[in-house]
Amino acid sequence: MDDIYQESLDLHRRMRGKLEVRGKVPVRTRRDLSRAYTPGVAQVCREIQEDRNRAYLYTIKANTVAIVTDGSAVLGLGNIGGYAAIPVMEGKALLFKDFAGIDAFPICFEGYHTDFIEDVKNIAPVFGGINLEDIAAPKCFEVEDALQDIGIPVMHDDQHGTAVVILAALLNACRATGKHLPDITIAMSGAGAAGFATFRLLKCLGYDRKTCLPVGDLIVCDTKGIIHRDRPDLLKNKYKYIIAHETNSGNRTGTIADAMKGADVFIGVSAPGIVTGKMVRSMKKDPVVFAMANPVPEIMPDIAKRAGAAVVGTGRSDFPNQINNVLAFPGIFRGALDARASKITDEMKVAAAHALTGMVKEPTRGRILPGTLNRRVAWQVAAAVETAARECGCAIEIS
Amino acid sequence: MDDIYQESLDLHRRMRGKLEVRGKVPVRTRRDLSRAYTPGVAQVCREIQEDRNRAYLYTIKANTVAIVTDGSAVLGLGNIGGYAAIPVMEGKALLFKDFAGIDAFPICFEGYHTDFIEDVKNIAPVFGGINLEDIAAPKCFEVEDALQDIGIPVMHDDQHGTAVVILAALLNACRATGKHLPDITIAMSGAGAAGFATFRLLKCLGYDRKTCLPVGDLIVCDTKGIIHRDRPDLLKNKYKYIIAHETNSGNRTGTIADAMKGADVFIGVSAPGIVTGKMVRSMKKDPVVFAMANPVPEIMPDIAKRAGAAVVGTGRSDFPNQINNVLAFPGIFRGALDARASKITDEMKVAAAHALTGMVKEPTRGRILPGTLNRRVAWQVAAAVETAARECGCAIEIS
Repeated sequence: MDDIYQESLDLHRRMRGKLEVRGKVPVRTRRDLSRAYTPGVAQVCREIQEDRNRAYLYTIKANTVAIVTDGSAVLGLGNIGGYAAIPVMEGKALLFKDFAGIDAFPICFEGYHTDFIEDVKNIAPVFGGINLEDIAAPKCFEVEDALQDIGIPVMHDDQHGTAVVILAALLNACRATGKHLPDITIAMSGAGAAGFATFRLLKCLGYDRKTCLPVGDLIVCDTKGIIHRDRPDLLKNKYKYIIAHETNSGNRTGTIADAMKGADVFIGVSAPGIVTGKMVRSMKKDPVVFAMANPVPEIMPDIAKRAGAAVVGTGRSDFPNQINNVLAFPGIFRGALDARASKITDEMKVAAAHALTGMVKEPTRGRILPGTLNRRVAWQVAAAVETAARECGCAIEIS
Repeated sequence: MDDIYQESLDLHRRMRGKLEVRGKVPVRTRRDLSRAYTPGVAQVCREIQEDRNRAYLYTIKANTVAIVTDGSAVLGLGNIGGYAAIPVMEGKALLFKDFAGIDAFPICFEGYHTDFIEDVKNIAPVFGGINLEDIAAPKCFEVEDALQDIGIPVMHDDQHGTAVVILAALLNACRATGKHLPDITIAMSGAGAAGFATFRLLKCLGYDRKTCLPVGDLIVCDTKGIIHRDRPDLLKNKYKYIIAHETNSGNRTGTIADAMKGADVFIGVSAPGIVTGKMVRSMKKDPVVFAMANPVPEIMPDIAKRAGAAVVGTGRSDFPNQINNVLAFPGIFRGALDARASKITDEMKVAAAHALTGMVKEPTRGRILPGTLNRRVAWQVAAAVETAARECGCAIEIS
């Protein structure tokens, strides 16, 4: 691990960052300049002045995403602030370009501040979408909700990118193990950004999207244990309040170990090493274990396997069944940009999950998702998301 | 002209904007990703968390400039807003890259708003400098002043880029015509962004920088005529108040025609066609005429020449003596970034002007400045600006 840290430092220092801004048009001759800049550009300005949506036709808005952070929950490093977050946001921009041809640019705020939501809204004109990144829960929920109507898609990837991939993994793990979604119980560890979004997206598979989960039951734990309706701390966090009232039908109490007893599926979006082999053995037959704490998962795959897990997934590339949001976000934003979507709806996220599911024709216990380096994934996801955007009527029409 | 408008529209539509964001490092293998993104990047984050100035060593902050506008004074189009301004800001970014290798990215706000200054300040972490662009006077002065201490250089190019080139042109025009700076009278038309900045920069050549102009006299006119100390409207605009009290030693009144009578130099940063041959004939012997309204100058060069002008300069590339800020801003920001300057001081601007002046060894009436397509200019300016930044102690030291 030390090796890669030193290599990374050297790379960053030598290159002074990982991104560059380049022109796509020639500026060698006076004629070039007259076309790309003054006086020719004035006509383009006038066109957009008449209808600001024409910015999608004539400017980088067509293909540009801002990667916005306040640096409050960066990797496993915590609240390190906007400056220290820059290298991560640049890395994310590399992925956007490499997987989906999107021109992404980091915008790093130095910590959360009162005007954060307004600030993000105000920089929107030049961007076709905003990827919120590494913002701590529960602030991330409020921020994202407040930005849903600014006219361009705003998505917090740590929530929805992760939730989309977990949903796809869950559907194919059920197929691989012969489990039937309405019959299973899921124990989830983690009620932060990824946990809450997974709960919300799961609901979108149900018939009555307001209250009904499409699974037998879902028991969510945070660091204090199972979230149930009698916990006195719920009034301080409306998101956990919602979880308490829409999951855990038996209002069970206890620890994550209690939650896992008799469960079919474990979903970990929490902390390293909190799950033991014994806890896996207490689950139903052929249990599914998604241990996505990164880089050290809730339980190491070999231990989970020995304890009888039928399917094991982690966030890591060095184990089978990598459940990583890089499978989702490039394609989701590609599809949203191609549709000129004004927002990213639940329908678009579910479509993305189904597109991922469909990329593995015959899911097996060792292979429930396409590989994270598979370059076709983003484009399949994009096509599904673009179609969903048009169907739910959030594609912007330009006169 | 219509031709270039249609060509420009076609170009913009075909390319969907003129910029792209590209990676500078490979992301093909898992090892590539581990170096450029997780887990390797965590070490880079920790380094910057210890000292945020290390962002200059490891991230795009080293070479990135935000081109920030509110769209309130775009080209000759006026207050067209942030969306319609995008194509111009993209064009500017092309010039930054092409002339000085700088990665510039447009940030367009939709009009001026109460929190504009805070908004610009808050996006600073990822940028090494901020180029304010096309913001109307007098708001542009307040905005720029308020942003001088945010830790990175903030320069309104319509003010200082233009002023630097005018100053250089003036110095070499004097050499070409044998005029002596302390003896000349300048009549200036325009007291907006460029006019006020030219007045301010001119003062930096004087001995007592607070009040003394290095020239015999300067008479500034706006649309109401000569700015003098008895004008009742001065209290509404503190910038014009300052002009009234620091120029026009005889407190002359009247029109631009009155101001030009007996003047040695005319500087026009105002409106098309407002100067006649007769007005040029009323000037001193061998008058210098800088008519920089764009695209149609205050007086066409052939008319000024026939009226006896010794040196004529315009903002246009199709006449001799092009006085265009593209000679200044790429090199100024290049030098500021290379010095890791915390601001752009008057000393740095004066150094830039002298660097430009020095690029024409023997100024003649037909050639007072280097050509705008000369690729050496920005690097000469950058070297002078970087040295000046170090000398005035505003280069950031990194531990």
